[in-house]
Amino acid sequence: KVPQSKPCEDGGQPCKKQKKMLTYQQRAALCTHPVAKRLFTIMHEKRSNLAFSVDVTSATQLLQFADDIGPYICLLKTHVDILEDFSQDFVTRLQATAKKHNFLIFEDRKFADIGQTVLKQYISGLYRICDWAHIVNAHIVPGPGVIHGLSKVGVPKERGCLLIGQMSSQGSLATGEYTTAAVKMAEENSNFVMGFICQGSLTDDPRFIHMAPGVQLGGSGDQLGQQYNSPAQMVTEKRVDVIIVGRGILNAEDPVATAKLYQHAGFEAYENLSNNLCFCTI
Amino acid sequence: KVPQSKPCEDGGQPCKKQKKMLTYQQRAALCTHPVAKRLFTIMHEKRSNLAFSVDVTSATQLLQFADDIGPYICLLKTHVDILEDFSQDFVTRLQATAKKHNFLIFEDRKFADIGQTVLKQYISGLYRICDWAHIVNAHIVPGPGVIHGLSKVGVPKERGCLLIGQMSSQGSLATGEYTTAAVKMAEENSNFVMGFICQGSLTDDPRFIHMAPGVQLGGSGDQLGQQYNSPAQMVTEKRVDVIIVGRGILNAEDPVATAKLYQHAGFEAYENLSNNLCFCTI
Repeated sequence: KVPQSKPCEDGGQPCKKQKKMLTYQQRAALCTHPVAKRLFTIMHEKRSNLAFSVDVTSATQLLQFADDIGPYICLLKTHVDILEDFSQDFVTRLQATAKKHNFLIFEDRKFADIGQTVLKQYISGLYRICDWAHIVNAHIVPGPGVIHGLSKVGVPKERGCLLIGQMSSQGSLATGEYTTAAVKMAEENSNFVMGFICQGSLTDDPRFIHMAPGVQLGGSGDQLGQQYNSPAQMVTEKRVDVIIVGRGILNAEDPVATAKLYQHAGFEAYENLSNNLCFCTI
Repeated sequence: KVPQSKPCEDGGQPCKKQKKMLTYQQRAALCTHPVAKRLFTIMHEKRSNLAFSVDVTSATQLLQFADDIGPYICLLKTHVDILEDFSQDFVTRLQATAKKHNFLIFEDRKFADIGQTVLKQYISGLYRICDWAHIVNAHIVPGPGVIHGLSKVGVPKERGCLLIGQMSSQGSLATGEYTTAAVKMAEENSNFVMGFICQGSLTDDPRFIHMAPGVQLGGSGDQLGQQYNSPAQMVTEKRVDVIIVGRGILNAEDPVATAKLYQHAGFEAYENLSNNLCFCTI
């Protein structure tokens, strides 16, 4: 059910400015992409638009974090290529934890090579990413071949891909026409591409999911160019769907309590957005 | 010694159009970057501007290729993340082979994340790339933070980095201002950045080395967007310094004989370029 609209501020006349906003549940119903459908469903059921970026270098520590923070998130974002002790056993345990707490796994590999190469990087090597990551992402700089290469493997396995349309780092070149090109490539490959890594909404198509890294309560940045926005800024102002929080939780004194805080802040921003939008028109 | 110039076609007047061309040896002398200096020296000594891209998924097969093709190349380009049987022993043997045949190792990782992340991807994980790869490369799309993150590790270890200024794949977005931005970032970080992955010369600064993938004798492309140029086109027309050949050698009936062919074609193109250039002015 679409949330109730408030009377339009503009004297009760239909407000042309606001777009109709769909709930996660409605968007799940619209999705034909299996992973997007599943993720929107989890977001609705768990009342969470929080992704946790668990950038630790110990697999044991990663699994502990996944188990502790798992109940509050819709998605766990990994960089398995920084783990000192990656193993097949780790993968099995990670998958079990994801199932236990009902979250998806997103390996933030940022594939960025020609099609033939990313295909091999996705299926082979020590990490065999396609075997366990529900979602991966790709830079579009090589051209559409990067998506074609990955989708040859990903589509049969019912995996999803996010295109990097924007980045949170200072001086990023993913802007303007580059970002527009990402949206076009997503639309042309929507059997595999399910959304974007971005800093704000890039398309009104409700089937695409927008995820923003660089989210922190009260943070400003680091010494290597990272820049932060708050959950409310990202969800209410920038209209992103999923907030990706890493160091905001990892470096907190109480990571579990802090994850709950981010879950609440992110979901409240989504609900506020619903409540404040005018639904008098499409 | 600068190769002898031919009389200028323009009636013996100084020809303003041609740039002065330096030999590999002269460029080695100009370089302050330790890896660029070493690579130009190897290119001069071995009379080879050939890099071999050994994209196989077996470490044993890779080592055999490295030993067979090693004598004819200046550089071996790897994707260790596609190897099914990567190990520390493999690294030790690869390093020994590189020493035996006097070539450098270039891990084509295409780092493309924020500074904090690429730093961890460079030093840690199962591959510990910074421990054995003389050269790595990076996409500039995240902004300068990607270089700052990598150089924190790479500079103290006397490693080199190539920025991806252009790609060989169809529809690549590394063009125009994006490419210009790569050159600027290279100039601003020349203690770590030693050159470019490109499809033609991007700067006249002789200390930067230009390497071009997508090189094949008689090839046109693949089904996933790769496009090919010949060694002569790349070296004589496009003015790249190192030709990167993968499938042209890997898929040949006689890889060793074919590598020799590419070495000869690449070096002959360099020598022809020297002979045909006018050195009457800078």
